[in-house]
Amino acid sequence: MDILHRIGVRTTEPKKVYDALTTVEGLAGWWTDDTKGTAEVGGVLEFRFLPGGFDMEVVETRPSERVVWRVVDGPEEWVGTTIDWDLQQSGDYTIVLFRHQGWKEPVEFMYHCSTKWGSYLMSLKSLVETGQGAPAPRDVQIGDWH
Amino acid sequence: MDILHRIGVRTTEPKKVYDALTTVEGLAGWWTDDTKGTAEVGGVLEFRFLPGGFDMEVVETRPSERVVWRVVDGPEEWVGTTIDWDLQQSGDYTIVLFRHQGWKEPVEFMYHCSTKWGSYLMSLKSLVETGQGAPAPRDVQIGDWH
Repeated sequence: MDILHRIGVRTTEPKKVYDALTTVEGLAGWWTDDTKGTAEVGGVLEFRFLPGGFDMEVVETRPSERVVWRVVDGPEEWVGTTIDWDLQQSGDYTIVLFRHQGWKEPVEFMYHCSTKWGSYLMSLKSLVETGQGAPAPRDVQIGDWH
Repeated sequence: MDILHRIGVRTTEPKKVYDALTTVEGLAGWWTDDTKGTAEVGGVLEFRFLPGGFDMEVVETRPSERVVWRVVDGPEEWVGTTIDWDLQQSGDYTIVLFRHQGWKEPVEFMYHCSTKWGSYLMSLKSLVETGQGAPAPRDVQIGDWH
């Protein structure tokens, strides 16, 4: 079972979006301040939130086209899932097709993560378009599970 | 294939969320200004955007608990799909579990609709919490497909 999202980032340079997905500084700009690790293929990125976080192995990076992560540590429901980012240019927009795939069951946490990913994608869009994202802990709150 | 979302609306009165899903006035407050039709079971709700829109048959309404719509007219990919809204109270929050089910294929339009639903759910949350939603045409723009 997969979570799917699509946004269009208004830029003629897909590399800007790609950089926001493949550098620690870029990732910290839209997902969470507390981002560490290695963004190259084979490296592990460590994303931390209050409480907990996610460790992602970088599986594939194709400049300005594609990034794939595998979740190697984090909540039980996430471990073993993969996150695909596909970029394609369409006029003035870099289109981001996002897929978080391999959920075993449509648990309530999956519903939450779907909405939360959507709001982080808007943070990514804002980072590239304006220079200012809304990473944790300044992320948009969507309810009791934050 | 389903789109899933979950938000928590900060209110101790789930009826407020239910009313925003089962009255033309409430629906116009968070989804689209141009909402017409009948919100009772068996009625058809007509949601219009620029361009196009959706006609939803109201299949089920269980006060403060559940609303189900079936798409009877609109984009080809939507016709025949159903949209379930399940409400449950958790402390200070009315939890909304949203499911748009029955997509035949994970087409790019499904990715877009997933992100867009997430942003409309935030509009619903805002409407109930503050009295002010962001319905079309004042909705949050997520890219080239709006």
